[in-house]
Amino acid sequence: MMRSRFDKGIPMIVQCLILFLFLRLNSINSLPHPLDPLSPTEINKTRDIVQGSYLGAIPNLTYHFVDVEEPDKKHVLEWLSSNTKDKPIIIPRQAKVVVRAKGETHELVVDLIKKSIVSDRIYTGHGYPPFTFNELFQATKLPLTYPKFKESIAKRGLNLSEVSCVPFTVGWYGEKITRRALKVSCFYRGGSVNVWARPIEGITVLVDVDSMQITMYNDRYIAPMPKAEGTDFQSSSTSRSKTSSSCDDVSDIGFTIKGHEVKWANWVFHVGFNARAGMIISTASIFDDKRNKYRRVLYRGHVSETFVPYMDPTEEWYFRTFMDAGEFGLGRAADTLQPRVDCPSNAVYMDGYMAGPNGEVQQVPRAICIFERNSGNVAWRHMEINNPQKMIRNGEAEITLVVRMVATVGNYDYVLDWEFLRSGSIKVGVDLTGIMEMKAVSYTEKSQIEERVFGTLVAENTIANYHDHHLTYYLDLDIDDNSNSFINAKLKRATASGFGTPRKSYWTVVREIAKREAEGRIQLGLEPAELLIVNPNKRTKLGNEVGYRLISAQPVTSLLSDDDYPQRRASYTKYQLWVTPYNRSERWVGGFYADRSRGDDGLAVWSLRNREIEHTDIVLWHTVGIHHVPYQEDFAAMPAIHGGFELRPANFFESSPLL
Amino acid sequence: MMRSRFDKGIPMIVQCLILFLFLRLNSINSLPHPLDPLSPTEINKTRDIVQGSYLGAIPNLTYHFVDVEEPDKKHVLEWLSSNTKDKPIIIPRQAKVVVRAKGETHELVVDLIKKSIVSDRIYTGHGYPPFTFNELFQATKLPLTYPKFKESIAKRGLNLSEVSCVPFTVGWYGEKITRRALKVSCFYRGGSVNVWARPIEGITVLVDVDSMQITMYNDRYIAPMPKAEGTDFQSSSTSRSKTSSSCDDVSDIGFTIKGHEVKWANWVFHVGFNARAGMIISTASIFDDKRNKYRRVLYRGHVSETFVPYMDPTEEWYFRTFMDAGEFGLGRAADTLQPRVDCPSNAVYMDGYMAGPNGEVQQVPRAICIFERNSGNVAWRHMEINNPQKMIRNGEAEITLVVRMVATVGNYDYVLDWEFLRSGSIKVGVDLTGIMEMKAVSYTEKSQIEERVFGTLVAENTIANYHDHHLTYYLDLDIDDNSNSFINAKLKRATASGFGTPRKSYWTVVREIAKREAEGRIQLGLEPAELLIVNPNKRTKLGNEVGYRLISAQPVTSLLSDDDYPQRRASYTKYQLWVTPYNRSERWVGGFYADRSRGDDGLAVWSLRNREIEHTDIVLWHTVGIHHVPYQEDFAAMPAIHGGFELRPANFFESSPLL
Repeated sequence: MMRSRFDKGIPMIVQCLILFLFLRLNSINSLPHPLDPLSPTEINKTRDIVQGSYLGAIPNLTYHFVDVEEPDKKHVLEWLSSNTKDKPIIIPRQAKVVVRAKGETHELVVDLIKKSIVSDRIYTGHGYPPFTFNELFQATKLPLTYPKFKESIAKRGLNLSEVSCVPFTVGWYGEKITRRALKVSCFYRGGSVNVWARPIEGITVLVDVDSMQITMYNDRYIAPMPKAEGTDFQSSSTSRSKTSSSCDDVSDIGFTIKGHEVKWANWVFHVGFNARAGMIISTASIFDDKRNKYRRVLYRGHVSETFVPYMDPTEEWYFRTFMDAGEFGLGRAADTLQPRVDCPSNAVYMDGYMAGPNGEVQQVPRAICIFERNSGNVAWRHMEINNPQKMIRNGEAEITLVVRMVATVGNYDYVLDWEFLRSGSIKVGVDLTGIMEMKAVSYTEKSQIEERVFGTLVAENTIANYHDHHLTYYLDLDIDDNSNSFINAKLKRATASGFGTPRKSYWTVVREIAKREAEGRIQLGLEPAELLIVNPNKRTKLGNEVGYRLISAQPVTSLLSDDDYPQRRASYTKYQLWVTPYNRSERWVGGFYADRSRGDDGLAVWSLRNREIEHTDIVLWHTVGIHHVPYQEDFAAMPAIHGGFELRPANFFESSPLL
Repeated sequence: MMRSRFDKGIPMIVQCLILFLFLRLNSINSLPHPLDPLSPTEINKTRDIVQGSYLGAIPNLTYHFVDVEEPDKKHVLEWLSSNTKDKPIIIPRQAKVVVRAKGETHELVVDLIKKSIVSDRIYTGHGYPPFTFNELFQATKLPLTYPKFKESIAKRGLNLSEVSCVPFTVGWYGEKITRRALKVSCFYRGGSVNVWARPIEGITVLVDVDSMQITMYNDRYIAPMPKAEGTDFQSSSTSRSKTSSSCDDVSDIGFTIKGHEVKWANWVFHVGFNARAGMIISTASIFDDKRNKYRRVLYRGHVSETFVPYMDPTEEWYFRTFMDAGEFGLGRAADTLQPRVDCPSNAVYMDGYMAGPNGEVQQVPRAICIFERNSGNVAWRHMEINNPQKMIRNGEAEITLVVRMVATVGNYDYVLDWEFLRSGSIKVGVDLTGIMEMKAVSYTEKSQIEERVFGTLVAENTIANYHDHHLTYYLDLDIDDNSNSFINAKLKRATASGFGTPRKSYWTVVREIAKREAEGRIQLGLEPAELLIVNPNKRTKLGNEVGYRLISAQPVTSLLSDDDYPQRRASYTKYQLWVTPYNRSERWVGGFYADRSRGDDGLAVWSLRNREIEHTDIVLWHTVGIHHVPYQEDFAAMPAIHGGFELRPANFFESSPLL
């Protein structure tokens, strides 16, 4: 609303002036991409504007979310398609800011050109914005000075100076009134750097975050302290020299990065970053040499939410049902990437920038890496013996471009990849590694186990609890333009009669166009199908609708009961695929205010309207799930477990782009 | 039988003499692995022995199968565990030979030390051995001199010298009496090296193979000839220089190959090769540094059969339901690998040897490649902020060892990988590429299509037909020894009551031990489960049964009706997983005599006995399936489609072997 008023009401001369300021603001020579994340200068400028307003006078103003305000897609597309030199399109540069002041949540839109707050609204719905780092940090310090906790530590014969506490979000379990709260669990280091290996079990500490006080304390039982032995996470091969062998398989395709825009092979796309999603891929287009132009594939793709419920219903564990992106932030959890461990030596890096608790810019050095991969696979190949007098053999090694970040959310490390292929495919991968959440128990051997445990005995006195990971991806595909349809192309058995042959059966493809949201909501794997997103306006020369298809890994469904509280908050995890009409405000699948959310916002609610999704701008929501039954090999640090999916052209090109 | 008599009845001095001869025979210094494929010398020696027998006098004796006769597993394991210098264990060196003579199939066992045929049996059941190359070649030449075919070509205005014909197996469709037969389909080259792109549609040519004559000819209709344009398979980037950039990510782990035995990192395994399965991985063991010894994981693994039914029930297509391994042979189809295309520049190669139609040795240069892969992935990593005053970050790049072959079975190329990980995982991959089977039709644009077609219009006048690929792997896992059990560990929802918390549900693991074969036969994906193979005799120090688990990709089931003839022959494809007790004679899932088989041999029949599979030596049979709905991008040569599975340690080690 603000934006469109702003667009129209100002004369050309002012627009030019604004453009000039805008360029200076971004400190780069070319016009920045409208989806560029806020630059360090812009983050600090945003803070200055907010601090200069009435809000600056309020004590303890905290910044929970600062990101570029999502520009109108229409404007972005106009901007992209225009020749910026000749007729620059002016897109407002605005920040969305969520601050907490006097116990209230303010949603602000800050205009960086007007240098003012253009919208200020108090959010009164359920749920809260992500915690600031300070809040998390302060909460974990509270037990260490809390008399009852000190008693508990003494009672266990432990040394308080060797205790580390970790903040856990608490979810929602039917409470009529909720406050911002954390439960703090504590661990004993005592000789190990693996904080997670030695939980001090049996204690519940509830912290009210706004008042930053412990409001409930319960020391229910004492469990033995697991041994520190073998818990350090040191590679068995770090001593191995990694110095150079020569290698000439690296390609010379190369890639260029201008600002946030990456060009590689036939692809061009934009790499953004924010505190919530982490890495964001936008406006990905692929060059079609038969049509001699770039064609649009993906307007926007990123992790929208993660849902990580643990399967232990007891007092100290039942609430552990994390929504990491919304409660903590995957960008906030982005770790600086280690060359030659997290990314190969040919990688280039991008830093990430976020606003800290006080609104000032914070840097994550090397938050994203981009590298060409030659994994040794074959992109395509063929040998032909059926030509007389000559055998023909041809093919090509698979060289791809990988864009990666790692989010370390407490104990778990998510390696998040977007991989671009010259064939037109985009492969999205997630590797889970890091350290499992573990529970101290009295058992040192499996045969001792008498009562129900909720995981695997992975070390003496240590159960690694069963849990799930559900990573839901926001995929605003724009196949060759905005107007798309989703087709569930089912493979159905047919009877082979009337053909005069003894064959009895075959399968064929029955295409079902999803007209409304209810038809795009699918539990994958129940029946064989090709999941297509097509542009019904665009056809190949042969008359096939241009499209892409989603190839999922083995689908995983949340096994929690529909009426269980965490499942109500993440009810979208009952289906691995949803299709919705594009809506600028719908990006966070579990609702924007995920902390203590009640399931009254988010995809499952939006989709109840059962809107039309045929022949329009649509968004796919795909959940990659992993049921994690831990094994001893996952201790002390997990060998990576892989999940992911592929977006693969399906009659998008006239023929293979590799030939 | 022969073998055990041979083992016992001879005095030590003769055994020593035999050992001496055995060593010379193999022309290498160290004692060869008993699972080594027949050497070139041995293949020719086998032929000499057969030719020297009464069989040598029979005209047109043809060799259809020559492989090392499977040694008793017990003897192989004794051999492996013995210190061969001190007490060499004598294992007979024998070849299994299948020859055809006077229309009969002889199964021979040839003893290479005794230099005699020690068993000679005529096979009288259904089905036939694989075709020889000569048979396939001769059959494809017959139409070119057949008057009716020449008429058909003339009628179509085509030039006979530009016609290439291709042999297709014919399956079984209820005939009471079957003969060895091929159907020959012909294609028009006329300016393209892509033989498959221009089918001469409408003609059926049936060849009786034993008499090598056309016994049925039908020219049913004429379809237009698809254009040659755009059908060549040339990489769009072959002109790209691949010259050296420096790259220092290659590890210095390195590997050694002695004979057929490969040592890399913590793994040791044997790489074999035969004409039917192609590459065979045997006796794979992993070093456990906590126990300071190698521990057995896989006795034998290879592709057992492929089933590739096409979904077109019409006269010229209905029979195309190939069982490539048994009808043609994946090793027979092994293609010489191209450095830097099929395998990276750091690969080393092994040649493959087979007997040709006349029994003489044939070489496949560079049939197998072995290389270290650094794909840029992370083996494990973690960053820890919860230690005071220090942040700890550790991890390791994933470096693996890949063993690869490529089988080009006519139009399709299968890239078959076994990848070994230091974490203990074995990843088995198959990439499908090459050229699709296509049908000429009258349509040049989709809207013209009036009648049912059975595929996708991928070029003018060209339908690529729907089809499946089902690759069934033989996996004789021996987890830490022979005695294993299969456990279907199901994830089941439980009600969270009695814990005093508001949580309503969670999931837990219910382990179901498969006692008999019926319980090990599973359609994957119907319910969430961990598929475990454990050794009930061996436990970790914590008391967990040592095991591995099978992680499958999204499972694919054959959609043909149970009573359809191809499905009866490949009825095992209705389940992606079967478990059987080890039986030396059960290796080829669709039966040894796959050509024209009737489904009365093979896994589904063997398993009807419902034998005990608990706590014994068991074999897993896992099918990797792909329903292939073609798209235009698959034309003219397909970008690789990936399938596969992972065997991952599950409480096999005490903790992560990477730390």
